[in-house]
Order: sequence, then C-alpha cells, then structure tokens
Amino acid sequence: MIQFQCDYNQTCHPAILDALQQMGMEQNVGYGCDPYCQQARAAIRAAICQPDADVHFLVGGTQTNATVISSVLRPYQGVLSADSGHINVHETGAIEHSGHKVIALPATSGKITALQIQQAVDAHYADEGPEHCVQPGMVYISFPTEVGTIYSLSELEAIHEVCRTNHLPLFIDGARLGYGLCSPQCDATLADIARLADVFYIGGTKVGAMMGEAVVINNAELKPHFRYHIKQNGGMLAKGWLLGIQFLTLFTDGLYLRIAQNAIDQAMRLKQAFVAKGYRLYADSPTNQQFVILSNEQAESLSRHFLFERWAAIDENHVAVRFCTSWATTTADVDTLIAEL
Amino acid sequence: MIQFQCDYNQTCHPAILDALQQMGMEQNVGYGCDPYCQQARAAIRAAICQPDADVHFLVGGTQTNATVISSVLRPYQGVLSADSGHINVHETGAIEHSGHKVIALPATSGKITALQIQQAVDAHYADEGPEHCVQPGMVYISFPTEVGTIYSLSELEAIHEVCRTNHLPLFIDGARLGYGLCSPQCDATLADIARLADVFYIGGTKVGAMMGEAVVINNAELKPHFRYHIKQNGGMLAKGWLLGIQFLTLFTDGLYLRIAQNAIDQAMRLKQAFVAKGYRLYADSPTNQQFVILSNEQAESLSRHFLFERWAAIDENHVAVRFCTSWATTTADVDTLIAEL
Amino acid sequence: MIQFQCDYNQTCHPAILDALQQMGMEQNVGYGCDPYCQQARAAIRAAICQPDADVHFLVGGTQTNATVISSVLRPYQGVLSADSGHINVHETGAIEHSGHKVIALPATSGKITALQIQQAVDAHYADEGPEHCVQPGMVYISFPTEVGTIYSLSELEAIHEVCRTNHLPLFIDGARLGYGLCSPQCDATLADIARLADVFYIGGTKVGAMMGEAVVINNAELKPHFRYHIKQNGGMLAKGWLLGIQFLTLFTDGLYLRIAQNAIDQAMRLKQAFVAKGYRLYADSPTNQQFVILSNEQAESLSRHFLFERWAAIDENHVAVRFCTSWATTTADVDTLIAEL
Amino acid sequence: MIQFQCDYNQTCHPAILDALQQMGMEQNVGYGCDPYCQQARAAIRAAICQPDADVHFLVGGTQTNATVISSVLRPYQGVLSADSGHINVHETGAIEHSGHKVIALPATSGKITALQIQQAVDAHYADEGPEHCVQPGMVYISFPTEVGTIYSLSELEAIHEVCRTNHLPLFIDGARLGYGLCSPQCDATLADIARLADVFYIGGTKVGAMMGEAVVINNAELKPHFRYHIKQNGGMLAKGWLLGIQFLTLFTDGLYLRIAQNAIDQAMRLKQAFVAKGYRLYADSPTNQQFVILSNEQAESLSRHFLFERWAAIDENHVAVRFCTSWATTTADVDTLIAEL
Repeated sequence: MIQFQCDYNQTCHPAILDALQQMGMEQNVGYGCDPYCQQARAAIRAAICQPDADVHFLVGGTQTNATVISSVLRPYQGVLSADSGHINVHETGAIEHSGHKVIALPATSGKITALQIQQAVDAHYADEGPEHCVQPGMVYISFPTEVGTIYSLSELEAIHEVCRTNHLPLFIDGARLGYGLCSPQCDATLADIARLADVFYIGGTKVGAMMGEAVVINNAELKPHFRYHIKQNGGMLAKGWLLGIQFLTLFTDGLYLRIAQNAIDQAMRLKQAFVAKGYRLYADSPTNQQFVILSNEQAESLSRHFLFERWAAIDENHVAVRFCTSWATTTADVDTLIAEL
Repeated sequence: MIQFQCDYNQTCHPAILDALQQMGMEQNVGYGCDPYCQQARAAIRAAICQPDADVHFLVGGTQTNATVISSVLRPYQGVLSADSGHINVHETGAIEHSGHKVIALPATSGKITALQIQQAVDAHYADEGPEHCVQPGMVYISFPTEVGTIYSLSELEAIHEVCRTNHLPLFIDGARLGYGLCSPQCDATLADIARLADVFYIGGTKVGAMMGEAVVINNAELKPHFRYHIKQNGGMLAKGWLLGIQFLTLFTDGLYLRIAQNAIDQAMRLKQAFVAKGYRLYADSPTNQQFVILSNEQAESLSRHFLFERWAAIDENHVAVRFCTSWATTTADVDTLIAEL
Repeated sequence: MIQFQCDYNQTCHPAILDALQQMGMEQNVGYGCDPYCQQARAAIRAAICQPDADVHFLVGGTQTNATVISSVLRPYQGVLSADSGHINVHETGAIEHSGHKVIALPATSGKITALQIQQAVDAHYADEGPEHCVQPGMVYISFPTEVGTIYSLSELEAIHEVCRTNHLPLFIDGARLGYGLCSPQCDATLADIARLADVFYIGGTKVGAMMGEAVVINNAELKPHFRYHIKQNGGMLAKGWLLGIQFLTLFTDGLYLRIAQNAIDQAMRLKQAFVAKGYRLYADSPTNQQFVILSNEQAESLSRHFLFERWAAIDENHVAVRFCTSWATTTADVDTLIAEL
Repeated sequence: MIQFQCDYNQTCHPAILDALQQMGMEQNVGYGCDPYCQQARAAIRAAICQPDADVHFLVGGTQTNATVISSVLRPYQGVLSADSGHINVHETGAIEHSGHKVIALPATSGKITALQIQQAVDAHYADEGPEHCVQPGMVYISFPTEVGTIYSLSELEAIHEVCRTNHLPLFIDGARLGYGLCSPQCDATLADIARLADVFYIGGTKVGAMMGEAVVINNAELKPHFRYHIKQNGGMLAKGWLLGIQFLTLFTDGLYLRIAQNAIDQAMRLKQAFVAKGYRLYADSPTNQQFVILSNEQAESLSRHFLFERWAAIDENHVAVRFCTSWATTTADVDTLIAEL
C-alpha cells in the first residue's frame, strides 16, 4: 500500500535523525532552555525577518491552537474562524474545552474575508446588549487552509488591516505553512506572514519533523508569560532540545522550504494527471492536498493499492477524495498512482 | 412609555408579593431545604404527573442552561441545538465557558427535527476518527422557541424517540413554557413535556415570578449530585424559600397557566390587529412574542410611545420588530398600541 | 425552634417589601439598566466616597466570588486566600471550576498577613522555573472572616500596600460587611474598605436583603467588560431592578449599617452571657458569629429549642458550635437563649 | 559540567534511535493506530499481566495527569493528592485549569495513607451540606513519589482497598515507575501496580525514551471514549508510531527495567558515598533521586562542575540539594562526583 491519506505518515527528514544520532549521549537542560532551542529561535527570527519575535516550540497542532487561542482571549471572548477551520471541526472541541466559543463564519473555499470579519464585529456591537453575546476577540485563519487553498497577499493584508483596526489579534495556523509558501499561486513570503500575523506557527509535524510546531509571537502584548500557558496546557516538552534540533535542522540552509517544494511538485504532477485523464477536480487546490471526484468503482479499485481519504459524498455513484503529498513523497510513488488512474 | 420589549418587565404576580408579606419575619432554613420548597416540589410533581421527578429551583435561565448542560455532558461532548437557540446566541458563551461546544443545527422557524438530530449523530460516527470531533452528547430545544414557535406533540415525540434510540438526553428549555402550553396551536400538555424530556425547566422569571426556574429531572441517571452542580455554578439561592414560595403560589389552583393565558390572549389580539391593518408578519408566531415588519418611519413613530425590540433589518426601508406580551399585559395597553398602528 | 444557625434565615427588611409593593405593576427595563439600579449605584458611590467606582449587582456570594476572581485572573494565575476562606472550603470548587487554583495560606483566626502574601510571591519567583507553578495573581480576604474576626485598619493597609507593590489586585469579600463595620473592634470605615480594595462587595443577602451582592470596582483596569463576565457566569438577573431597589433601600438614610448594628448588639449580649455563665469561647469573635464550646449534653439539650451550627469537635465530650445573630434577631429570642444557658 | 539536576537530560536509549533509523522512510498511519503501537500495547499487557487493559500513549506527564484526571472526575469532584504531589505543585495548575480542585492531604515523606483517604471521605459526608464542598472523586499517588520514596506493597494494598470501598478510582503516576520498581526497598512488582491501580502510567520520558507516557486503564468504567479525551487535551501525537516504537523497544527483552536498574545502582553508590563522607541526608530515598544537605560553600563549590537542584534552604548556612541519576548515568560521572565530595 502506498499512502497518500495525509502528510504526516513518515518519521522525519533523514537530516534530523542524523542530528539526533550525532548528539549521542550529550546532556542538555530541559524545557526549551538548551542551546539547540536558542539557535533554532535565532534561525527562525532570521528567516522571518523579525529580530524581536518570541519563538516557542510546542509538540502538536491541536495543543498549539488551544494554547495560543486561550492565551489571547478573555473569558467572554470567542475566536472568529472559517466554519471549515481545523479548530471548529477537527480538534474535539479543544477551544471550547478551554472556555471559548469558535465563532464560525461561512467559508468560501476554506477562506474568510476581511469584510466578513468587519461585519461580525459590527453585528456584535450593533446589538443593544452586546454583553449577552460572545465578543469577537481574535481571528484565526489557516495558511494553507484545510482544503488546500491559500490567501493572496492582498487578502492577508486586508485581513491584517481589519484586525488592526478592530484590535483583534490575528493568528495564522501554519501547520502546512511550507506547502503554502511553495505553491506556484503564492505571492506571500514567510516574512509577509510574520509581518501580518500577531502570532502564527510554523508547522513541523507535516513538513519534515517528527513532531513540533514553532509558535512565533510578534505582538508585544501577547508575549509575557506564554511559557506558563505552554506548561499549563501540557505542551512543554521535558526534552525540549528534541524540538530545538529539529527546527534548527529545518531552518539551516533553507531545508524547510526546499523539502516543502517537493510536496508541491508532486502534487502538481498529480493534479495535471487528474485533469489530463478527464477527472473532475472537487477543489482547485494549489498546494499539497489534491481533491478529485471519483466514481465509487474507481475509488474502490484505487483503494486496493493506495491509502487516501474519503472527503465527501458527491452523489450515489461518486465521491470526492483527498490525496496528500508531502516532503517525503517520491516520484516513483506518484508515477505508480498516475499509472493506475 | 408602554413596554412590549420583553416579557419580564414587571415584578411579579401580586399573589406572590402577598405570600411574601404574609411570611413576615418567619425563620426558614436555607438552600432549598425549607417547607415551601418541599410543597412547591410536590405541587409541580402533581402538575406534571411525574411523582418521582427531582425538582430543583434555580434563579435564572442562563445559569440553569449552563448548570443542566454541564451536568449531563462528558468533557468531549457537545449539545445539539438550533443555531437560533438561546444557548447559542444570547448567553455570552456560557456553555462554551463550561467547556462544551454548542453543535448548531440550522433551524427552521426556530425548530430542529428528529431527522437532523439523527443525521448529526450518523455523521459523527461515520467519521473514521470520530474522536477528532466533538461527540453529540445531548439535545437542547426550547418550548416555545426563541421566535415564538412551538413543537407539535408529534414533533416532540419524534425527537424524544431519536434521542432515546441514540442515548442522548433531551433537555427542554421552558423559560416561556406557560406561553407555549397556552397557545391555541399547542397540542402538547405539561404532562407531555414532562414525559418526553429527560430534564426540562418551568420558567418562572417570564411567567409571573420575580425570578426562578424550576428544573425537573426525570431521567434517573441525571439525578444524583445535582445539588453539587447547582452550588458550583452559583445557582443555589441562600434564601431558597423565596423560590419555593413563588412556585408554590404559581402551582396552586392553576395560577401558572391561568396567567400565561392572558399573554396569549393579548398576543393574538395584537396579531389579528397587525393582519387586519395590512402589516406583514415576519414570523407566524402562535405565542406571546409577535414579529411584524414595519417601515422605518412606522418603527420610528411607534417608538415614541412604546418600547419594542428591533429584531432584524429587512431592507433599507423596513425592519422586523418584536412585541412581547406577558402575564401582566393589560387590555388597555394593547388597545393603545392597536390604536396607534 | 428559634434559629441561630445562620444570618440569612429571614426574608428581608420590611422596608424592602414595602418598596416592592409600592412599585406595583410598574414596568422596568431589564438587566440592571433601570432607574432603581442607577440610584442605588449613586447611593453606594456616595456612601463609599468613590465617585468613579463601577457598581454591579449580582445575586449571590459564590457567584460573585467566581465572577470577580475569574474576571481578574489570567489562566495561569491563582488567587491567594486564607485556607479557611469561603472560596477554599464552601463553594464546591467554583473557583477551580473557572480554571484557577486557590493558593491557600495558613490562616490565623481566619486572617492572613501582608507578610504571608509577600512570602508567597517571593517563593514563586525564587523558583528557577516559576512557569511550572501557578502564579499568584490576586489576593482574596473576607471582612469579616469566616470565623467572625476582622482585620484592623493597619492590617488592611499593610495588605493593600503589599498588593500594590506586587501588582496583585486585592478583592475583599464583604458578604457580612455590615457586621464587620459595626463591630466595636472595627477601626476601619466603609470608605476605608473602598479605598483599600481594588474590588469588593457589599453583602445584601446576609444584611437585610432578600438576595443580592453589590460589587464595587475601583481599579480602572478591572472595569471594562465586567457585564460580559456577569452574564456569562449566570449572574445577570433579568429583573435587575429587584436588586437595585433593595440596595437603594438599604443605602437610604443609613439603613444598611443601622440594621447591621442590631446583629452586633445581640451578638455581644450573647457573648457576655456565655462568658458570665462560665462557658469557654472557641474563638473571640467581635462580630455577629459567636463560637462557644459546649458539652455534648449541653449541645443536645439546647438543640431542642434552638437551631445552631456544629462547628468542630473539641474532644469526646465537647463540641464547638456557632450562634449567628442578624439584622432581624430579636432581643426576646436572645433572652430566651440566654435563659436556657 | 556533569548534569545530575534531573533524570531527563539525555535524548534516549540508543536502541530507540536505532529502531527509528531502521524504520527509515516507511509509511505509517497516524494517531496510534499503527502496528508498532499495537505491538507495544501487547508487550505492555504481557508485562503487567493484564490482558484486557487499555493502553494509550501520550507525550508528557502534565498532559497525562490532566487528561486522566479530568476523564475520571465529574465537574464537582476533586482529586485527593499528597500536598507534595506533582499535580499540586509543579504543573501550573493544569488540574484546576481542567476545572477540578486538588484536595491536598499532608504528606509524610511524599506519601499519603489509606487512613487519610478514609478520613477525607468521612469528613466530606459528615458535613450537613456536603454539596457546598468539593466531593472527593479519585485518589492520585506517585510511585515513586516526588521525594524519591516508595509505597510498600501493603501500603498500596491498603490504599487500593480504601479506594475500592469508597468507589474512588486510584490513579498512580508512574513518571519514574521503573526507578521505583528497581529500588532495593521495593516489594511490589509491575504486576502489583497494575493490579492495584484503576489507571496508571508507565513513564517513558524519564526512563529511556525521548518522550512518552503509557497510560494503562484497567477499570472498565474508565475505558470508553478515552481517545476523545486525549485528542481534546492535545495529547494525541500525529505520528503515534514514534511512541509505539519507543515503548515496544523498552518492553522488548526487559529493557525498561534493565536500564532503570542502572539509575538505582548509581544512586545507591552516591548515597553510600554521602553517608561514608559524613554528609547528612535530607531524605532517605531508596530510588534515583538523592537528597543531601550541603553547606553553602560545599554547594557553591560543587556547582562549578556539576548541575544539581537546590531543593530547600535548611538554615542560613545549609541547603538541601537533589542529585538525580538516570538510565544513562555513567559510573565515571558518579566517580567524578564522589571524588569531589
């Protein structure tokens, strides 16, 4: 079986295992206070062009989202999010578990707009008794989104602006950040993301690391005491250098974006093959998640040799499915899939 | 100014104040363990034909909803509700504050259906990894709903059945229960409500009391330790007899439904007047909340002598507004309003 | 049976019932936005000599404590409290339910000291990894305390000072505030309490009202959005004028302190009788709660005609019990008790 | 600098890195549903002699404690724990953050007794209004404790029995479980721990793994839906096989206990050296944490070449410090330390 069901089905980039081997029986202090974490923070600050940013390493995405969001909000506030946002559908209510409503806005291709955000804020304060409703307290978007789309630079700037005007911190979930930045459609840089977000994270788990998400805090008001939040939410890895060395490796010599590019190259080959062979796309994704409509027979037949995710039923005879590529996807595996189509 | 903006703008039925006066300097034990509460419980058990029900008195609706819902759910569960449900829009996220997602289903005229509930459950378990999503753990409906509509007995029975089959406790918010039961459209009785709900409450605040909601628990699994939940959620009134005597008064000689009937009678007069004078109804409500579409000029003009609630903008020139009647609404006040139309 | 088991076993001062009767079928707007609440706020601001204070009316003490404390703290912070503090022992973990640790300091006669507070703060920051521990975020004291004692003005000023220096808001639970201020031992005024606390509340439930606690916020940083907290925590009474008119009555012509004085007068009579008749005091309380040691036989015998609270076992043959007086305690009832001793 | 400040300052046992290397670019499904996790679960079930136990892999200790405890308790319940317990002092209030009070019992050498548990339960229910207090809902103990001590088998059996009688699930924190089981003083086996606990965990982070704690649930009532809790609390590692392969390695050929034994051997050498050289022990620990009293000068001098933890000030001139050994501690490093004493 060849696996395309997600982008986190292989351990990590070999350079990371090598670095761990090299470390050997070396002793380190815990909780992210080691030299590897310090160097990784410096490398990330340089890559994002934000010399004053705070950088913290957490283990996984749900934990990171819940920690960041609950650190930003006051108890009576909620987070504005696309209704298709990961926090709204696939985190077992971790945000609500932390006490906060996800205020879901209807997404278009996984995205929300600056206008929707402004309207949500206006609607809240237009109410004669706004204190009877959850106050919008921040904005959450994903780059790329859960359906593989990406915000253009101008869309991001508009969202940034509406957030700034309304004093809503903007949080960008970058679980697949590398795959967004490497998309041919992307006109934003890593520095743009960093400049426009109050807080965001650079996903490691899906882009070459064993695990780990690097949270970057730019907004000075959000910086104090963040380590308390991490610890309280169970995200402070005892052997923090394990995260440090991974991000240091990924942010040395541009490895992070270089391996992300492979996922995009393979995804584009796959997409072209779908189109060439007459398959209908379910969504026009410019990143590493590709959505295509198959007949039930085709899906059944492909599932004999490939793992992929059933996404949505289209009609009685058709289903939309998702194929993911990753930093580790080989040309050979994609060739095999294309041949089978 | 004559007030029609809500159904809780007058202190309480005179019989309640009389009862308090009569009590005078009498001493009572606290926390709902007094004889008045005991008698009120007995009176309610008789009225609902559930001799084994547990009855608790809380102070207000938001508190009651949060206390009941968080007492029923496990941490990873959410409550299915109409998207227009009070818990989803007008309680400042009290349910999320208690750690639980409100799983909003699109309402039709404020109501959800048994089919929608079944589909939500099916969708949850159809997922290959349901543990990544909030598990539906109970169902919340309002009777009447936030837009004044009521479920028919057959709709309630269908919802009860789908809840039973899926082991989802059914919770009925009866903040305006009296007004629903007195509606000419209502084919359910108080005993039906009690029979079909695992837990529900009889609203006092909006139907004659100064404050107070009587929570009735029928499902034996939900009964233990409920007083701990009340206390923890700040709902255990020190002078509990104040709630007991109010519900005892309301459930003596059928006062509760008798005074609720006045609200319906006045609302129907108002509705007929709207229709007779050619106003468009915004919603066809059979209870004490009436929704009508006014031109902006009409709204402006009426607001000089009447308080009512702006409900929704219709277009640039029109607005839907809500007029509420209550147990205390006088024929004279409704006449004055009708004359002004 | 004559009840001395608590100070909230009679409905309310007659002047309050009269005021409600007089209000009759008058219509009012809800949620504390009515004229009675406005006037009560003004009366309280005048009484406490804080013209800029925010004043909010909540229903009960546990609710008030949880709402205030969770509005002040950040998620990783806890509240410093005497281990005997009401929030630590008698609120079913409402503070922890809101996500916060009660950091209990060993109390002496129900009180904590400025020194203890400073030491707790110092100990926290002395840790090499303070983020592994709950950060002290505010201080909670009761005036009077749960065992009837009161802080002297100099003790309060020292606590105020250590709080100010360490940026810890000081919250004073005044559930029995009137009884503290009327104590012969008290050298602080209501204005002192108001001046020294960042936020405090004036208890109504135990001092003449049916229910209600008036929260006073002096610290400007704690004022914004407090109504959201009240609503989310289920403390926003729909018919808010019921609280407004009670506090307006209590703060008209000094009624609040005048009726509190009665409790103290009766308590002192009782205490003197205990001493005169050779009973050992369990605690030397200068307020309305009196603690005395009885033999088991004496306790048994007295319990035939009086309700009082068993407080603590002393030895196999003796028990400490609590007798409470209140605004409503009559000279006749105390005489009867004294005669029985 | 040679590090003795904790037992998690080296990456992992070489066999684990080897296993990861061998896995190479192999593809695996996520979230703990892979074959390595399945094999690791089987190996653990065999080692603990509980063929029906549920085994889950989480990332770290604070996360594990919060997830297990909040999965067991109802909202109004708290967890009984030694006041020195890790959950009470060093997890930034993660338990309170989940809504529950840690009911702290005074520890003796880090341990609590069956009698203390029974007394806490009795005291709760002796109260006339137990619903005003947090209900004891489970018991948490650590094996070994935070100060290196271990419960004897008979102590564990007594605690188990009192828990069973009072329907309190018993949870054993085994962050250092291996070090407890290898202690010369230990008369309990892994199978005993498993038999006596309703739920416990086998610590990986401190005993040879990069990270990971294996939660074992024996009590059938606690098993359902635990994966929802893990996911909601951010503990479900995407690449779950990373945890599976580590525990599989540790539970193949008895590696776990074999490497734990090294920590004990080195700790005993260190302890004997302390005693032989006339140092006073601060606590008589039979496990890998050794506590000794140094003069300030000695502490200062040793800190030039060794990292260790300052534990408690003894007097103006002396300090108690902690030296930890681990699976990775070398004889040479201990020799160097002993030579320096």
